Amino acid sequence: MGEFELIRKHFQRPGQVARPGVALGIGDDCALLQPHPGHQLAVSTDMLVEGRHFFADVDPEALGHKALAVNLSDLAAMGARPLGFTLALALPDASETWLAAFARGLFALADAHACPLVGGDTTRGPLNICITVMGEVRPGPAMQRSQAQVGDDLYLTGRTGEARLALELMRGTDWATRACGQQALTRHPELRQRLERPLPRLALGTLLAVLGNAVHAAIDLSDGLAGDLGHILQASGVGAEIALAALPVAPALQPLSAEQRLDCILNGGDDYELLFTAAPIARAAVDAAAQASGTPVQRIGRISASPGLRVLDASGHPVTVSSRGFDHFG
Amino acid sequence: MGEFELIRKHFQRPGQVARPGVALGIGDDCALLQPHPGHQLAVSTDMLVEGRHFFADVDPEALGHKALAVNLSDLAAMGARPLGFTLALALPDASETWLAAFARGLFALADAHACPLVGGDTTRGPLNICITVMGEVRPGPAMQRSQAQVGDDLYLTGRTGEARLALELMRGTDWATRACGQQALTRHPELRQRLERPLPRLALGTLLAVLGNAVHAAIDLSDGLAGDLGHILQASGVGAEIALAALPVAPALQPLSAEQRLDCILNGGDDYELLFTAAPIARAAVDAAAQASGTPVQRIGRISASPGLRVLDASGHPVTVSSRGFDHFG
Repeated sequence: MGEFELIRKHFQRPGQVARPGVALGIGDDCALLQPHPGHQLAVSTDMLVEGRHFFADVDPEALGHKALAVNLSDLAAMGARPLGFTLALALPDASETWLAAFARGLFALADAHACPLVGGDTTRGPLNICITVMGEVRPGPAMQRSQAQVGDDLYLTGRTGEARLALELMRGTDWATRACGQQALTRHPELRQRLERPLPRLALGTLLAVLGNAVHAAIDLSDGLAGDLGHILQASGVGAEIALAALPVAPALQPLSAEQRLDCILNGGDDYELLFTAAPIARAAVDAAAQASGTPVQRIGRISASPGLRVLDASGHPVTVSSRGFDHFG
Repeated sequence: MGEFELIRKHFQRPGQVARPGVALGIGDDCALLQPHPGHQLAVSTDMLVEGRHFFADVDPEALGHKALAVNLSDLAAMGARPLGFTLALALPDASETWLAAFARGLFALADAHACPLVGGDTTRGPLNICITVMGEVRPGPAMQRSQAQVGDDLYLTGRTGEARLALELMRGTDWATRACGQQALTRHPELRQRLERPLPRLALGTLLAVLGNAVHAAIDLSDGLAGDLGHILQASGVGAEIALAALPVAPALQPLSAEQRLDCILNGGDDYELLFTAAPIARAAVDAAAQASGTPVQRIGRISASPGLRVLDASGHPVTVSSRGFDHFG
């Protein structure tokens, strides 16, 4: 099957052009998008490589989901509403079964967020998935990394660490298997779910963006809570304190040692939760946005003038934390 | 060197945020672009894979140029003005020398067209370059593949076939070497230039877009003149005649047999020239746009009601032509 047939069969769907915001979809030199008047265009791109971001034998449907989810998570962190995405795909061979499942996972998430596929490229090569997502947002400094202010509350959606523990258990890493047991992945199906099917926090993100100027900085967690918070702190020229007791701990992480647990939570990576800062005056508004979007949101600390990140125990003493993050090129 | 340092060193340049149209550049979850009011956003993505789109030992500076050029060519074919691009890069290792040269080639072309890098992703993996380019264009059907009309003139910029001949000579393909000689690449440095450093026809494209409704369909030639013209014909429900004598023949193609030459010209691929149709009343305007943009433009045929593509010799008889194109997934 040739490139064009391949694209048509699995990725060109009837009616996809007739979406608001999409003036011209797949099939021309460019797609044409029409953002609402007065809006800016938010753009983000992510590349997923076999052996680095996923295992060779990953369920292709989950992979289709995740490839788009990690991009939508970037839109969520800017409070942008999705307009559409492009998909570039290098495939070692054109397996019908694989492509059909990949497309199924991809489009299920795309449809859930009204984010149509508007263009793409397919080629033969080592498996590589590159998605670029576009959204629209009202102009303003809100939710940029540089906007955290001293005194801000620090919020986290959901909980972190499960994706990393899932990864270590799937790899059979000694410390993880010893602590959690051989059956941990079976007893805790949510672990694999968190690794393979992260849910972008778009509903909350778009609500936070309209809270006026109360929400300051935001970031999506891909490299680990500590590392990504570090980007906010650096860009804003501030520091932060996190209350150890306020960090949500997933049930599956309970068997870990305190040190292992904190490492997963702070440095695990692949979480795709939102971390954001907001003025204390906005607490009620943040709670309302969390409720309205059905998103668990936890206040985990605050922004301070003193540079660096400190995690404080119940008595206010700093806990030692590594902050190596989950650097994809380390 | 970690991912973030790598990105900073080679791809984050001071002052790049302060471009018109770019509200927020590299370094946040998303880039923010601000198209001019009333404009649509044109988006295109291309993925380049080692061994498929370029040789492993290609000059990285040329590769940086080409990776962006093939994307800008898509904007040109929609008459869009560049706003910015994202770059996702998978690298087997982080060679400083390679990256510096790649960035040099990339930014030289980006600067020439005022198209800043606004975001990206870097990861370890088999060499893969995925660029998504964004531009702006006034709303309207002009320059879409479906807009060719019976009676339109058919125009070609520059000339086709050299990139393919260069590829065959570099591969040492028998028919090419026998016809052109072992020294052909040395005697004709433009061959390699055409393959490795195509020049996107943006100046002409943006002029054609403002010729009102006179220019109908346009496409950029990546898969070969015949194959890409086929996309226009199919999308528009029309056919075309090309006058063999009107097809520009590059000097380096002269030693080929008539059949080889026509195959290179029609099916070579990798040309990144523009093919477009316009009402006969627009001839003077097209000539003026060609002159103003310094672009060689040749009228090579016309659109007809009878489906399919016919290449006619001097006496009006159809020449036999294969039209397999240069399918990247064949």
